[in-house]
Amino acid sequence: MAALSPLAPQTYPDLPPVPGARFCAGAAGIRYKGRTDVMIALLDRGTQVAGVFTKSKCPSAPVDWCREKLAGGKARALVVNSGNANAFTGKAGADAVKLTAAVAARAFGVPRGEIFLASTGVIGEPLDATKFEPALPKLAEKAKPGDMFEAAKAIMTTDTYPKVSTRTVELGGVEVVIAGMAKGAGMIAPDMATMLSFIFTDAPITAPALQAMLSKGVEASFNAITVDSDTSTSDTLMLFATGAAEKRGAPRIEDARDRRLAPFRAALDEILLDLAHQVVKDGEGARHFVEITVSGAASKAAAKRIALSIANSPLVKTAVAGEDANWGRVVAAVGKAGEKAERDRLEIWFGDVRVAAKGRRDPAYDEAEVSKLMKEKEIRIRVDVGVGAGSATVWTCDLTREYVEINGDYRS
Amino acid sequence: MAALSPLAPQTYPDLPPVPGARFCAGAAGIRYKGRTDVMIALLDRGTQVAGVFTKSKCPSAPVDWCREKLAGGKARALVVNSGNANAFTGKAGADAVKLTAAVAARAFGVPRGEIFLASTGVIGEPLDATKFEPALPKLAEKAKPGDMFEAAKAIMTTDTYPKVSTRTVELGGVEVVIAGMAKGAGMIAPDMATMLSFIFTDAPITAPALQAMLSKGVEASFNAITVDSDTSTSDTLMLFATGAAEKRGAPRIEDARDRRLAPFRAALDEILLDLAHQVVKDGEGARHFVEITVSGAASKAAAKRIALSIANSPLVKTAVAGEDANWGRVVAAVGKAGEKAERDRLEIWFGDVRVAAKGRRDPAYDEAEVSKLMKEKEIRIRVDVGVGAGSATVWTCDLTREYVEINGDYRS
Repeated sequence: MAALSPLAPQTYPDLPPVPGARFCAGAAGIRYKGRTDVMIALLDRGTQVAGVFTKSKCPSAPVDWCREKLAGGKARALVVNSGNANAFTGKAGADAVKLTAAVAARAFGVPRGEIFLASTGVIGEPLDATKFEPALPKLAEKAKPGDMFEAAKAIMTTDTYPKVSTRTVELGGVEVVIAGMAKGAGMIAPDMATMLSFIFTDAPITAPALQAMLSKGVEASFNAITVDSDTSTSDTLMLFATGAAEKRGAPRIEDARDRRLAPFRAALDEILLDLAHQVVKDGEGARHFVEITVSGAASKAAAKRIALSIANSPLVKTAVAGEDANWGRVVAAVGKAGEKAERDRLEIWFGDVRVAAKGRRDPAYDEAEVSKLMKEKEIRIRVDVGVGAGSATVWTCDLTREYVEINGDYRS
Repeated sequence: MAALSPLAPQTYPDLPPVPGARFCAGAAGIRYKGRTDVMIALLDRGTQVAGVFTKSKCPSAPVDWCREKLAGGKARALVVNSGNANAFTGKAGADAVKLTAAVAARAFGVPRGEIFLASTGVIGEPLDATKFEPALPKLAEKAKPGDMFEAAKAIMTTDTYPKVSTRTVELGGVEVVIAGMAKGAGMIAPDMATMLSFIFTDAPITAPALQAMLSKGVEASFNAITVDSDTSTSDTLMLFATGAAEKRGAPRIEDARDRRLAPFRAALDEILLDLAHQVVKDGEGARHFVEITVSGAASKAAAKRIALSIANSPLVKTAVAGEDANWGRVVAAVGKAGEKAERDRLEIWFGDVRVAAKGRRDPAYDEAEVSKLMKEKEIRIRVDVGVGAGSATVWTCDLTREYVEINGDYRS
């Protein structure tokens, strides 16, 4: 395994139990030796669910399964494995998904149509779902509310650290908890990434309201990050609401526009952004975390396209790796985005230092000051393209030799 | 300078003189020490010209200049420097272009509106055009028909070898010559690349006919290559026809549809492809040349978008660097292209070995055979996406540690 990312969090939050949800991680021997590779979440009756999935035209078998089952809005369990993505596995892949659901339904005593599945790892290798047969009943027996951190570890692939985030907020005067996990380090790009993320709450919120919040929240978080521009076949983000807080007096929320939801929504957005940033900070080989804000674009969508053009530019990313404030490459990336930009009104900042303005280098800028900035772990690049009021922010990491090394022999 | 690319040509063709065109290269001291950095072409009266330029929204000052002057269709000279792109240099950049043209007009005794300019190198640094004042008169004095190879060397930046190509063909029963050069190694992507290419012929063909052939020819050559998906601010491809062969009896061609042009057009397309391939083979850090053909797409354009999605995928490119036939990443790249593809009818070949079919690994394929293929310098990947009759081929190179190293400290 690669060394811990230098951008890893210093500490992990204490994850409170989420009433109505129990977790357990174990080793099913899918691919890795000497580590956990499967996790389950068992969810009380009445749990509502929402999800957002990859836009890949070649989605994995579990993504097909989840999309179909999501229509019901109800969830009783989640089974996630690492080591094999069960993607591009043809009929065998669909069969493996069905078998996993059947095994889980039996082991957990819940309807198979309310079981959600996700897999991450190598693409194109058949997944031997019979390995779940001995594993799942044992996990079900041991599942406890407090074990989300161990679950987060079991779904790691090239991740160098587990990713978790939590908030406690009031819903109609009652405290509810939100806690989630994510995995992902490579094949990360908007819409979405080899990124799995599962968020749990005890708030009593119905599936349509959850879905509305999640679909909106993802735009400025998981859909605003990129490690390498490679969208995965397996991206899955799910939000489960057990509703257990209703017993403590929390109101049942059926409409995402309900004003009582405001603190919950804000906290959910924070968790989504926190997890998304953690994914980028674990970007394969990453040494720098880069925030890119584009303003002055023709629209918000145009701003995001320009920002992603910068964030995905190998030349910008290698310059950051070399701690070189090469704003000429930022200009080139703005130019290639295809969106309206006024070359002669373009302004570029690294941190708070304006390095370019009026179509040329800012004569006032101090290269030594910018060089110092580039040595920081977190770097902000801001660009105003001078044509309108659209703005957007995205996050990426640098492109290092280590990225090439990690991906040059991942499969072997 | 980086070591010679392992994909460099074994031999260079003898470049015949192009009647009506003279060349000279020299050192103007723009940026590099101990090498040439400026080249001129002097063109006889009557030379017709066509050009294709970057689609960047932030084009360089010389690109602005050439676009404007191209309307006249006439050319008497070309001045190209390396070391500084004169891009994103504001009013100073436009002034530098004007001064260069004025200096050249005086030195060569030709109208400044018929002088074409190109610059390649660092972006955002002012270009000191006064350095051309002593240099250009000396070059004009020494210019000779045979010196195109030296000219090709003078325009190199991170290139590890000069790129030239030539063909001799019949036009209306008279032999005419076509010979050209290119530079480019990084910031290479369709539409177009940090790519300069200049092609010369003595054929008497008018500017509109040249333009029609060039615009069409570029689609399957320079617009079908990518090193790093980064489109440059400076891409320039120009085709100059001196018309000198008219004296030897070649017919004057005014319409690109003229049937007598067929051999010329075929030879021009070959030169464009040859030069484009040479650029990819000199891709920064490249160790493998990769041809990617997509068939069965909804349209030719869809096929090209899918092919470029594969060609630009950092995960595919690092897998090739690691000599790993990781077709799962090819599936992911097809999926993210956003074009219609039938997962369960997708077929993928490495060389002539089908590795995937019917939505899964081809059970018949021999991994050892494919592993051997991946050690070759030239690798072919073919994908049929199973929905229609559109097909396209693009070319790229692998993404190696050396790419990151070269671009991590290019500017410093």
